Amino acid sequence: MPPSPAWVQKLKPASPQGTDLLSQERAKSNVNVDQLAEFLFTKEALERKDRILKILSSEPVFDKSKNYYQGREDRILQSLARGKRLEQLSQTHKWTEDDFHQANQLLSEATPLGMHYRMFTPTIREQGTPEQHKLFLEKANRFEIIGCYAQTELGHGSNVRGLETTATWNPEDKTFTINSPSLTASKWWIGSLGKVANHAVVMAQLVLNGKTLGPHPFIVPIRDMKTHEPLENVHVGDIGPKFGFNTMDNGFLLLNKVKVPHVNMLARFSRVDPETSKYIRPPTPALVYGTLTYVRSTIVLEAGSVLARGVTIATRYCAIRKQFQDLDAKASEVEENQVLNYTMVQFRLLPLLAATFALHFTGRNMITLYEENQKRLAAADSPPSSDSKRRPGPEELTPGTDLLADLHSTSCALKALSSTVAAEGLEVCRRACGGHGYSSFSGIGSYYADYLPTVTWEGDNYMLTQQVARYLLKSARAVLSGKAANNDTTRFLRVFLKRQDVGAAFDVLGSDQELVDAFAWRVAYLTFDALKKRDEEKQPWNSLLVDFYRLSTAHAQYMVVKSFKDALDSGATTSGLGSETVGVLHTLFKLFALHTLEKESSEFFSSAATTIKQIALARKQVMKLLEEVRPHAVRLVDAWKFPDWQLDSSLGKYDGSVYEDMFFRTSLNPLNEVVFDSNPNSPNLLKQDNRAKSKL
Amino acid sequence: MPPSPAWVQKLKPASPQGTDLLSQERAKSNVNVDQLAEFLFTKEALERKDRILKILSSEPVFDKSKNYYQGREDRILQSLARGKRLEQLSQTHKWTEDDFHQANQLLSEATPLGMHYRMFTPTIREQGTPEQHKLFLEKANRFEIIGCYAQTELGHGSNVRGLETTATWNPEDKTFTINSPSLTASKWWIGSLGKVANHAVVMAQLVLNGKTLGPHPFIVPIRDMKTHEPLENVHVGDIGPKFGFNTMDNGFLLLNKVKVPHVNMLARFSRVDPETSKYIRPPTPALVYGTLTYVRSTIVLEAGSVLARGVTIATRYCAIRKQFQDLDAKASEVEENQVLNYTMVQFRLLPLLAATFALHFTGRNMITLYEENQKRLAAADSPPSSDSKRRPGPEELTPGTDLLADLHSTSCALKALSSTVAAEGLEVCRRACGGHGYSSFSGIGSYYADYLPTVTWEGDNYMLTQQVARYLLKSARAVLSGKAANNDTTRFLRVFLKRQDVGAAFDVLGSDQELVDAFAWRVAYLTFDALKKRDEEKQPWNSLLVDFYRLSTAHAQYMVVKSFKDALDSGATTSGLGSETVGVLHTLFKLFALHTLEKESSEFFSSAATTIKQIALARKQVMKLLEEVRPHAVRLVDAWKFPDWQLDSSLGKYDGSVYEDMFFRTSLNPLNEVVFDSNPNSPNLLKQDNRAKSKL
Repeated sequence: MPPSPAWVQKLKPASPQGTDLLSQERAKSNVNVDQLAEFLFTKEALERKDRILKILSSEPVFDKSKNYYQGREDRILQSLARGKRLEQLSQTHKWTEDDFHQANQLLSEATPLGMHYRMFTPTIREQGTPEQHKLFLEKANRFEIIGCYAQTELGHGSNVRGLETTATWNPEDKTFTINSPSLTASKWWIGSLGKVANHAVVMAQLVLNGKTLGPHPFIVPIRDMKTHEPLENVHVGDIGPKFGFNTMDNGFLLLNKVKVPHVNMLARFSRVDPETSKYIRPPTPALVYGTLTYVRSTIVLEAGSVLARGVTIATRYCAIRKQFQDLDAKASEVEENQVLNYTMVQFRLLPLLAATFALHFTGRNMITLYEENQKRLAAADSPPSSDSKRRPGPEELTPGTDLLADLHSTSCALKALSSTVAAEGLEVCRRACGGHGYSSFSGIGSYYADYLPTVTWEGDNYMLTQQVARYLLKSARAVLSGKAANNDTTRFLRVFLKRQDVGAAFDVLGSDQELVDAFAWRVAYLTFDALKKRDEEKQPWNSLLVDFYRLSTAHAQYMVVKSFKDALDSGATTSGLGSETVGVLHTLFKLFALHTLEKESSEFFSSAATTIKQIALARKQVMKLLEEVRPHAVRLVDAWKFPDWQLDSSLGKYDGSVYEDMFFRTSLNPLNEVVFDSNPNSPNLLKQDNRAKSKL
Repeated sequence: MPPSPAWVQKLKPASPQGTDLLSQERAKSNVNVDQLAEFLFTKEALERKDRILKILSSEPVFDKSKNYYQGREDRILQSLARGKRLEQLSQTHKWTEDDFHQANQLLSEATPLGMHYRMFTPTIREQGTPEQHKLFLEKANRFEIIGCYAQTELGHGSNVRGLETTATWNPEDKTFTINSPSLTASKWWIGSLGKVANHAVVMAQLVLNGKTLGPHPFIVPIRDMKTHEPLENVHVGDIGPKFGFNTMDNGFLLLNKVKVPHVNMLARFSRVDPETSKYIRPPTPALVYGTLTYVRSTIVLEAGSVLARGVTIATRYCAIRKQFQDLDAKASEVEENQVLNYTMVQFRLLPLLAATFALHFTGRNMITLYEENQKRLAAADSPPSSDSKRRPGPEELTPGTDLLADLHSTSCALKALSSTVAAEGLEVCRRACGGHGYSSFSGIGSYYADYLPTVTWEGDNYMLTQQVARYLLKSARAVLSGKAANNDTTRFLRVFLKRQDVGAAFDVLGSDQELVDAFAWRVAYLTFDALKKRDEEKQPWNSLLVDFYRLSTAHAQYMVVKSFKDALDSGATTSGLGSETVGVLHTLFKLFALHTLEKESSEFFSSAATTIKQIALARKQVMKLLEEVRPHAVRLVDAWKFPDWQLDSSLGKYDGSVYEDMFFRTSLNPLNEVVFDSNPNSPNLLKQDNRAKSKL
């Protein structure tokens, strides 16, 4: 677009200016932003962020300003270029895994090389033998081979046992024949497979002597190492456009009786003896718990930060945006009201602000529990690993499976709740920005679209709740039979059994501990209710799925509320955070807990955890807490320390120059380089085209 | 992509085939699809759909298969070509307004010419004088001028009174000077303004003799009629990419003291006398009610069909998709279960199926009420208009404003509820499709993204609820003072007052009428509760916004439940629908009402509309109703009669060939024409590029 005429360049937004409004907001609160940020992330992590940001933001390839204009092809090629540059920078600067992760967070888009790091190399590392490490892992680390992890099929999602792809052992030449027997057997959704990978770890049903032994991982070459064209009998490509995540080449793969040598079956656990053609079983099928638990814990931690992005943008913009006067305002007050002052906006936004901290503390707690458990296992079982950053292999998790079962169930419940809260919360934030929330320059829409798969992958959020219910029912049976181990779950189940006839009478408004106890009571009530339906009334499993979903949600909410309180009780007070900041965090805790209680009031009420009167009072108290949090809102989101470069949002700019930035971006819009021919009877679409012809 | 190799072409999906599964589904139910469709839409409308579909689907310009690959520029130019072709076809085939609307529905995308029809010409028609019709409307109808409606500004959304753009009267030369005094005064979000329009109706503050008289409409030329370049002192362009709706050129507009002649102020209502420079006021400021009421009624009607699209796709796919076995299944049953058999899926999907009918009947009811009211006004006031399809001008609505106030409040409440239910329901449908719901080929994602603005425009859904609350509070005050008119609202408010101490004791499970009454009771309870807070406790308006939102939602839910029941009581039984079909509709009615009651149980309970016991029973009953609806699900969505061409969805295909279609579409993917160079150390992104070079 040609430069704006002089009269346009002179225009400013009407007063008050966004920058002034945000300064006033920051002046109103004593929350210590830097201390709080260090408490949340550690000084080291904040310094890392600054260091990596400097590198990325000075590289032209990472310029985000064209992201929204490109078609699918240009967009993914752009992202490939970024992925390549990240790898080069990683080599140049000798980035650690944390550095590399931080760079990806700041970039905020998946590159088509991503699954090589996230799935291909870890799978070989964890499931390969030393020989296979030498043969595949070392090359993968040097990018001599580029890979992906191919499990899901066109006709088969979460249910791994339903996979159709077969790997049949041929004793005569000691190979496996990998085959796709039908169209629905096609691998589908596989990240980095569509265009980028030349190898795939293919999960296939192992067939040995005519018997099917379940899914196992095989390394299959799929593209020519020189030409990158598909190999013979391999049909592979990109599955097409998606609601988001369009910088990734999710792919499909059909294999027509492709032979791979014996060594290509990853054999650290199960394997086929090449001489006897016998199958050697893994020690226990529960092995996979550990790794999945870790992945889900990181999803919980990430959910807080995903949501915080949206909350940061919406909170800043709602402090700047003015609309209408308060209906009670005197006629003399002509000034419009900051949108953040409306209770309806506060009611939508501030509980989400509280949720960002709640999820962060919960995620951190999960990871600590996981690491402690790992240490305990390692101490009991083997010398501790020298490489502490490495994702632990499942075999380290064999002993102490009871504790692991608890952690596993917890991670399922929390993964389901936290990713749902984050995804739906982002959309609430987008709408809280009013009309401009719909602009790509809000920075929320595409991020939301990219995040959405998280509610489905690593265990569909609805499916997972069945595992949680199964664990709670098992615990309840153990408690009833007097054989239960001692842990927090069995503790609150016992409390409920003891007190259920006496009644609960929790002082949810007066005592933090009793507020948390009320959440536990509700879980116990729902658990025994479901147990009665299942064990006494013999109701079919399928008829109870909705109850199980509610039970799992209740359990997750209890754990989040508890983690939030624990974080305040232990960490916050001893960390050097000022008492004012701790006080505001405490207000957020109460807001989160009481808002959740109110939202789920019918369960609190029917379980007799609270009286109806208390719920009405909780509703009132929530409105009061919103008022208390309101002046601190901008500083609280500041503590999340998202750089403008990361948010890439006009509405969420740190300095409040919202309208200037919205306007500036129109000058980068390639659509403003052309002149349309809009006459319906003219065959032309353009009258003039001033676009630079070069693309990429 | 080169044709698939022969071995790929031979592959079929694993059995059972989707086509067989859908045939079985259709065989299981006696719902008469064609009768039901005629009852919903009329025979005439269904024939229209067939006729227009034949025309559109045979025109290459409307081929949808490239939609998801194009960048912003190509996409909007493609849509411009479609908009032009629609206009040409409209002229050739002499389409009525209904025909044209149907064509747009089938196309399912906004074209950049859209606002010319939807906003520019109607505004001139309704707000222009006969002289202005001659000067502007006739040209607009012949596309000699192309226009848009420019109200919203960068810094000002819903609050029209806050607009900054001024139109100052110059008595000396009988012109108006239109000016944008700041950056935030820039018109923003204006459809068809960015690239297509050469004229705009600009809403600007009329300034007369130094006094500001509020916003008025002015016709402003903005682009040269020959070159289509912006005129001098006009800065105009496209505002940039959005979450959806990217086939529309939403634009910005800054005006630097642009003069327009006196005749360019649309003067059917308010006007400036050019000789005396005096302002002539409109008869009453409530005039605008009528048109907005009509627009909102159409949004309610449309909400049913928007949601039905998602429900159609998800229901068909969930009947085809199989995953896991029931946990209670015997070991011998190896077959996976249809996803639609899981109660958790039914619980998410089938109440939405019920909601599609509920919203449809409610919207139809709204439009009937509106039309009846129009007729009554016309009969009382003036000879009936010969052009019954025309949107009525606001002046026809002057008398009988009380009835209109009721209709207005109803339309606000229902617009807010129905568009929220449709938008959020679409996302529930998308997720119910599991992983494949995320593919663009689900057909839900982009439709959802395009629909989202509806929750914000024509009155933000949260803002609107204040108007509903204001009306209900006013009605309650009138009832208390004994001065209330007789209508349904005052009726149920009186019932509540009379019976509140005695109690309600509605038999929500045994009687349809009492079920509806329970919804009314809840509204009355919330109304008097809010009234007490406002009038007795003198609570600030702002502190009650959350209560008002709840109140409005409750009111809307009551009206939807009531409309659904009314439709069954009157229309369905007399329309020749078979009793089996009516029976299934009745089951849907109960499912919708009881599911809503359960979801909002805390309000039903605290208002004493129901006992806790009843809510527990309602929950049980919902599960039973899901089971009853289940076998009819596919036939019920069939009755919505969406052609495959309209849905453009692999998952929602009528014949169930889901996987074949997903796979076929990979062959149309331009990304599969190129070969990537994925080596991080190679400077190239492509090894080979087989794409056809021509675009568009």
